[in-house]
Amino acid sequence: MSFKFTIKKTTEETDNKARLGILETKHSLIETPVFMPVGTQATVKGMLPKEISDLGFSIILCNAYHLFLRPGHQLISKAGGLHSFMGWNKSILTDSGGFQVFSLGKINKVTDEGVTFQSYIDGSSHFVGPEKSMEIQMALGSDIAMAFDQCASYPSSKCETQFAAERTLQWAKQCQSYHSSGNQTLFGIIQGGVFPEIRMENAQKMVELKFAGYAIGGLSVGEPKPLMYQLLDVTVPILPTEKPRYLMGVGEPRSILEGVTRGVDMFDCVLPTRNGRNGCLFTHNGKISITNAKYKNDFSPIDSKCQCYACKNFSRAYLRHLYMANEMLAPILGTIHNLYFMNNLMQEIRRAISENQFNTFKKKFFANFS
Amino acid sequence: MSFKFTIKKTTEETDNKARLGILETKHSLIETPVFMPVGTQATVKGMLPKEISDLGFSIILCNAYHLFLRPGHQLISKAGGLHSFMGWNKSILTDSGGFQVFSLGKINKVTDEGVTFQSYIDGSSHFVGPEKSMEIQMALGSDIAMAFDQCASYPSSKCETQFAAERTLQWAKQCQSYHSSGNQTLFGIIQGGVFPEIRMENAQKMVELKFAGYAIGGLSVGEPKPLMYQLLDVTVPILPTEKPRYLMGVGEPRSILEGVTRGVDMFDCVLPTRNGRNGCLFTHNGKISITNAKYKNDFSPIDSKCQCYACKNFSRAYLRHLYMANEMLAPILGTIHNLYFMNNLMQEIRRAISENQFNTFKKKFFANFS
Repeated sequence: MSFKFTIKKTTEETDNKARLGILETKHSLIETPVFMPVGTQATVKGMLPKEISDLGFSIILCNAYHLFLRPGHQLISKAGGLHSFMGWNKSILTDSGGFQVFSLGKINKVTDEGVTFQSYIDGSSHFVGPEKSMEIQMALGSDIAMAFDQCASYPSSKCETQFAAERTLQWAKQCQSYHSSGNQTLFGIIQGGVFPEIRMENAQKMVELKFAGYAIGGLSVGEPKPLMYQLLDVTVPILPTEKPRYLMGVGEPRSILEGVTRGVDMFDCVLPTRNGRNGCLFTHNGKISITNAKYKNDFSPIDSKCQCYACKNFSRAYLRHLYMANEMLAPILGTIHNLYFMNNLMQEIRRAISENQFNTFKKKFFANFS
Repeated sequence: MSFKFTIKKTTEETDNKARLGILETKHSLIETPVFMPVGTQATVKGMLPKEISDLGFSIILCNAYHLFLRPGHQLISKAGGLHSFMGWNKSILTDSGGFQVFSLGKINKVTDEGVTFQSYIDGSSHFVGPEKSMEIQMALGSDIAMAFDQCASYPSSKCETQFAAERTLQWAKQCQSYHSSGNQTLFGIIQGGVFPEIRMENAQKMVELKFAGYAIGGLSVGEPKPLMYQLLDVTVPILPTEKPRYLMGVGEPRSILEGVTRGVDMFDCVLPTRNGRNGCLFTHNGKISITNAKYKNDFSPIDSKCQCYACKNFSRAYLRHLYMANEMLAPILGTIHNLYFMNNLMQEIRRAISENQFNTFKKKFFANFS
């Protein structure tokens, strides 16, 4: 098994549970807490793989669901796997397709075996269940695969949520029996919606299955932020200390800090890249909308403290011009900037933890990032 | 005047007039024959400035017309000029806006003083004539400015063509009187449509004005290729040997070879970049349309002889996937590839001229590039 997770340090501060670790896969070493950029369709939108690497990232996330539908996992397998296909030689985590199957496109039928749904591309009918999800992810050859799960939408009744959590547990067991790949490790996903008791029970049972890592799924789907943090408060302590903990779909800087506070190691989200494409740019003082007229004659960089390629070479006025003119360079530079911001944020978080200064760092960040 | 053109060699072959030169501006040395990528709105679409530079280009073209309308030449001037605004520290040639004024948007009025037209962006009314064109280009601070010209559309009657050519000559004189910029040089543009006698007369009169360089305008606007070559045959010999010759709007590889054959030094065109965005990719065997179904399982590079970043890292199958999925990386990689092809073509042309092997090179290229 080409996978190892080592805790390097747990904070000595009393009011947080932050920790430093190293994830090791066949393709790279990854310092945690880590943010993983999303490359849904085997590309982080607008970025050359070498740019992602130059920005400091050594793991990205790709979507099994999208790649299954287009270009097909078998084609990618023939290309030598996803790393080879997309020219990315560091680590890849693939999600299982569970979230997308339930949130995108029309669902025709859900049974204990899996889901029959229509492709959002051409309406064609497809079936994915735990076995198929493992087949897809093994063909893709990602470093970390995720178990196939059923994510209850928000809001859902307690009954629906309980049902989805139990099915997720059954599917998790099946995924383990179908999964076999020496260079790929499998993480379980904990569900349970916004109900602490369902989450806690689901987490306990998932832990009994002895996955290499545990994801917390079904959060950041519309529920209030304080509720998400409360659910983390009751879920994370159940997870084994020595295994990596991954909070799925969370990329908002403040939420990442709250996750790290509670002992989470891994995060992913389309937010920084999607915001970058839309002209919503992160700065140390919060987000700015670069298309705002007030930046028309602003010849300062996006963020004067930032050392990214966009900030070192271009002004807000130029960026605004590119967005107004609908030029491709606009989303490219916006993405470079926001991803640099995220990687820098994670570096600062890790430095703060190593110096037992995480609480101070967090307070300062919240005070500035309005 | 920060501008110098030096002929390094004229071919010793008898059946072509190819030559090697060096253009020198305040910002860079440029080996000729040269192809200039087009950065219409102060960006070569989808490319970081450092990528353009890494591809080997040391001069690009930007459009005075577009930049006048958005974001405005005064704003760019306040940013320290176009080089500073767009983060490009090598040379820039700006066209005069003449071609765009007559080909884009609605024209309200044309007089001897200039053109009143409506913005294609918001319908607002604007006036540009020789004086305004010089004001715009001096504010942009390009290395090479172009005289404001009237390009007759194709087809035009002899009478219309004669009229436009004479007006272009008058405007050229006015541009000279309005132009004053120590670091910017001014080129004249020769018009005359498809009528050899009008072109020859216009060229002779333009040469009397002693511009630093001469552009041949109003070609590659729809006329048959052989006719364009015939017009070059009669026009280029009139131009002074020691001045650079620039064939505007020509970037099709075979047409560039025909231009070089006739002694042309400079070329520009949106073709390689536009084709790249559309998935029409140049190879040594001609163009391929990468979205064609036959490339679905083709794991070879775009062009096995090519050393560009796209060819060294990705397969046709991956490129096709990106285009089909409408991913931004598709036009980015297509542009990188086609621009690499163009720069490589110009390098090969220059090497062939230096070895008195241009005819052989041209024959071989035409035989392969079908």
